[in-house]
Amino acid sequence: MIEMIFAEFDKMLGNLSGLLDKAEALAAQKKFDVGNLLAARLAPDQFHFIRQVQIACDTVKFGASRLAGKDAPRFEDNESTMPDLRRRITMTRDFLASVKAADFTGWESRKTLNPRREGKYLPGDEYLMQHVIPNFYFHVTTAYSILRHNGVEIGKADYLGAINYRDL
Amino acid sequence: MIEMIFAEFDKMLGNLSGLLDKAEALAAQKKFDVGNLLAARLAPDQFHFIRQVQIACDTVKFGASRLAGKDAPRFEDNESTMPDLRRRITMTRDFLASVKAADFTGWESRKTLNPRREGKYLPGDEYLMQHVIPNFYFHVTTAYSILRHNGVEIGKADYLGAINYRDL
Repeated sequence: MIEMIFAEFDKMLGNLSGLLDKAEALAAQKKFDVGNLLAARLAPDQFHFIRQVQIACDTVKFGASRLAGKDAPRFEDNESTMPDLRRRITMTRDFLASVKAADFTGWESRKTLNPRREGKYLPGDEYLMQHVIPNFYFHVTTAYSILRHNGVEIGKADYLGAINYRDL
Repeated sequence: MIEMIFAEFDKMLGNLSGLLDKAEALAAQKKFDVGNLLAARLAPDQFHFIRQVQIACDTVKFGASRLAGKDAPRFEDNESTMPDLRRRITMTRDFLASVKAADFTGWESRKTLNPRREGKYLPGDEYLMQHVIPNFYFHVTTAYSILRHNGVEIGKADYLGAINYRDL
């Protein structure tokens, strides 16, 4: 089942790229600098849009890395434009694609470490449930909300992406 | 693993209750009507706070109901106060507690129906991954963001709740 969770993360990262397109479209239509959206935030002491995308990517990257026991590529957090953010998303999805189902074997009990919590660990299952999943969706949703709050024409379908309903 | 996902939803609903407390505290401190927060939204064509909480609850309720094949209690969507919302959250958690691990047997392939998609279904695993999880965290995060945007003093720890890190 963990493969399905990461497959969904991958799909959501694609949806996030789609949100960038909609943001650019609004900036072009209204003739404002798209950087205004990149620097936007919902509260003065909350991260801006660029940082939300960076953290969404990192949550997936470190999640896969720690649960699969595979080194993650290092990203410099130097994105400042829409093409930069697209590249960050693509690099994250490329890393995800490099992690194979077999790499996750034993993930539930793998001790996951976090540099912010020295000398501590979380078992893989708790790390996935209590950290990776809620944080990933938090940052994707916050990125979405920053755009929505600023007039970008997006809705729930842009967030969720296509869902393959079957005929009964 | 599905039990862990719903256990985390239950925890997040408790965290959401904690956000209500912080919202009430700010309203009391600044002497404004807490109803102003309940009616707040991030965009004029997006749902307000009350509706975000209702949908977060319903996403979990219908998720458990459809994946476990158990009838869900009907809620009237008539909440208009903080105590109303607390009751809604409690009723949702009570229903969750009534669903036992054994009820989920076969959930992955169970055909889940949605009244909005007549004549269609999703297999349980796709319904959980592509609908329940992303929607639940979307609405909890949006409720959080509405409060944060309006000055309620909350941070990521209020959203995530306590995490039980172990000593290495």
